[in-house]
Amino acid sequence: MSLIVQKYGGTSVGDSDRIAQVAEHVARTKRHGNQVVVVVSAMGKSTDELISLAGQVSKTRPGREMDMLLTSGERISMALLCMALADLGVQANSFTGSQAGIITDCDHTKAKILEVKGDRLREALARDVVPVVAGFQGVSTSKDVTTLGRGGSDTTAVALAAALGAECCEIYTDVSGVFNADPRLVPAARKLGKVSFEEMLEIAATGGRVLALRSVEYARNHQVALHVRSSFTWEPGTWIVREDPSMEQAIVSAVTHDISQAKITVSQVPDKPGIAARLFRGLADHSINVDMIEQNTSVSGHTDISFTVPRADFALAHSVARDLSRQVEASDITADESIGMISLIGAGMKTHPAIAAQMFETLASQEINIEMISTSSIRISCVVGERDVERAVQALHESFALAR
Amino acid sequence: MSLIVQKYGGTSVGDSDRIAQVAEHVARTKRHGNQVVVVVSAMGKSTDELISLAGQVSKTRPGREMDMLLTSGERISMALLCMALADLGVQANSFTGSQAGIITDCDHTKAKILEVKGDRLREALARDVVPVVAGFQGVSTSKDVTTLGRGGSDTTAVALAAALGAECCEIYTDVSGVFNADPRLVPAARKLGKVSFEEMLEIAATGGRVLALRSVEYARNHQVALHVRSSFTWEPGTWIVREDPSMEQAIVSAVTHDISQAKITVSQVPDKPGIAARLFRGLADHSINVDMIEQNTSVSGHTDISFTVPRADFALAHSVARDLSRQVEASDITADESIGMISLIGAGMKTHPAIAAQMFETLASQEINIEMISTSSIRISCVVGERDVERAVQALHESFALAR
Repeated sequence: MSLIVQKYGGTSVGDSDRIAQVAEHVARTKRHGNQVVVVVSAMGKSTDELISLAGQVSKTRPGREMDMLLTSGERISMALLCMALADLGVQANSFTGSQAGIITDCDHTKAKILEVKGDRLREALARDVVPVVAGFQGVSTSKDVTTLGRGGSDTTAVALAAALGAECCEIYTDVSGVFNADPRLVPAARKLGKVSFEEMLEIAATGGRVLALRSVEYARNHQVALHVRSSFTWEPGTWIVREDPSMEQAIVSAVTHDISQAKITVSQVPDKPGIAARLFRGLADHSINVDMIEQNTSVSGHTDISFTVPRADFALAHSVARDLSRQVEASDITADESIGMISLIGAGMKTHPAIAAQMFETLASQEINIEMISTSSIRISCVVGERDVERAVQALHESFALAR
Repeated sequence: MSLIVQKYGGTSVGDSDRIAQVAEHVARTKRHGNQVVVVVSAMGKSTDELISLAGQVSKTRPGREMDMLLTSGERISMALLCMALADLGVQANSFTGSQAGIITDCDHTKAKILEVKGDRLREALARDVVPVVAGFQGVSTSKDVTTLGRGGSDTTAVALAAALGAECCEIYTDVSGVFNADPRLVPAARKLGKVSFEEMLEIAATGGRVLALRSVEYARNHQVALHVRSSFTWEPGTWIVREDPSMEQAIVSAVTHDISQAKITVSQVPDKPGIAARLFRGLADHSINVDMIEQNTSVSGHTDISFTVPRADFALAHSVARDLSRQVEASDITADESIGMISLIGAGMKTHPAIAAQMFETLASQEINIEMISTSSIRISCVVGERDVERAVQALHESFALAR
């Protein structure tokens, strides 16, 4: 008998009809001879509604109380799912993060999991009861209710799968899997049957929104096989698994894009030690996440530093950079909010040096200017103008024959 | 420094404005030099909405899951209140029933409190933090979440006041206190400044809806002084306290009415031992609560038995009684859904035998027919036709000079 952890997101349990369908699927999975542990998110947009309610009553919104507030959402969805299962003759018990033994640090609203006990879940499974666990939440070492931050329910599911030794962790969502390009931009985008953890990490980090980066990291670290699939069509989705060395690797698996960033360039910076450190310490002190950083070769004792930041932090980052550029007597600062980042990802890329050349040629043939370049062993990313993103993704998808 | 437990009902925390007003009042109470423990219900009608949601997904609705579902409501109101208090510079922490140490039996949806630990509340008070506790909920001896049933939040507040040795327990609601008649029926109805636990028990049991009977019993058993008052006007309300023997007692404190019952009469029952036992055992086996019972003197070996039941159980009670009347060869069964019960309550009544006579005379002067009578040492109740209830209440209020 296999143990499967199934995680259902907010849209999958968005109303009573959806909950009934999820209950049917859990019952079916059990009927096929599996043990099932279910993890649920709050229904639909209910977490957003609670956040807006908090905004109405408070400016300070203490973290401990935000966590108490937001953890009510999963209580509702999990209790309703257990009731729907009871009507199908499947015994199910709901468990809060605390009851499931998900122990976290005390960092309210973005707690990290320290330990997964899971005793009550094992005991329920032994009694042939399906445990339905609240995603996104835990209990801190000081016995207060915590939440894991956005995307936390995926992490709950992966952590439980690891702790209980599940065969796999199924992440049910409103798309049918991971695609090798955004289907809204590329009609020929193809669903991937299988990707490695490393590829999925790069996909998640460069604009593929299907899985939270953190849950993929947790799955890789604990070797939990993930299966991302749709709770609307129930068709097989995308497996995210350990790289199999015996297998021929796709040279390029996917092309992703991200238009959530902005670019800032500090020009003609005196090329002296410590200047870059001062700039990025200043940004870090304002909790601004810098993604890509590029420094050009020094010409006559001066250099240019470019970096990208989330657009939400753009104004703040711009002012921090401006202050610093005055202090270090840089000649100029330029900023561009209308950029996009295009990435090619593929585990086979490391052994095929011509990929970068082909990528740049493809963009050149479309007369798309490349503003920044960054690479990892399995990824090449280019910053281009936002208006060029759609064409770039389409051209790369075709050039690398990703429609197969 | 006095410790005051303040309980706010659903309408008192019905929206963000109401929550802000409650926060102001808690801050004010603290500023006046008191320690405060707050107990809250779920916002407005949210518990009813959750019950309706459960009805959409499930017919069976297992009690354990209903309790998990319904306990989400107080989580929201208490977290929001803590946030509003934080904005006023008052440190507050929310506590679930479990965190507050409210230990119950395992009778889901109507659990009974076995013990109140309250360690975390005492610890919060010692740190000058206001504990805001979820009403209506606890944790069972088997570590599952439980609810105390309707009116449970009042009981939570009284139980905490008893366990923490509070000076008093303030019950904030949408009326300004306990009135000596329903102000909707009697414009001259007067708010009572003080009533004894015994009188309040009779008032609650005979139609006065301000406090749940159970919380008054708990308060009497643990000698917790209650103060029922309005969270809309904040004026002083009604104190419910131990009877003070040195005090002159009002002969009649209040006139109450209740139109939620129906009457069934089994006529010409053979007057043999065991017949009444069979009838009421039959009703008890169907979980039908019988309120008033009356058996007339036997005439020629036969007797009549009348009783009242909640109208919701009327059809079932009628059929149980009909079955039995056939078995015991009673001649007839009559039923009346349109009755009302009028009660006079007063601690001084036991030493004034003429009250009953004056009550019957008053009703007679209005040509109101009395169908059943029942008494306790501090109460006289009469069943009349439902259409006569309003007139009866008005006439009695005037006859006993309750407008003063």
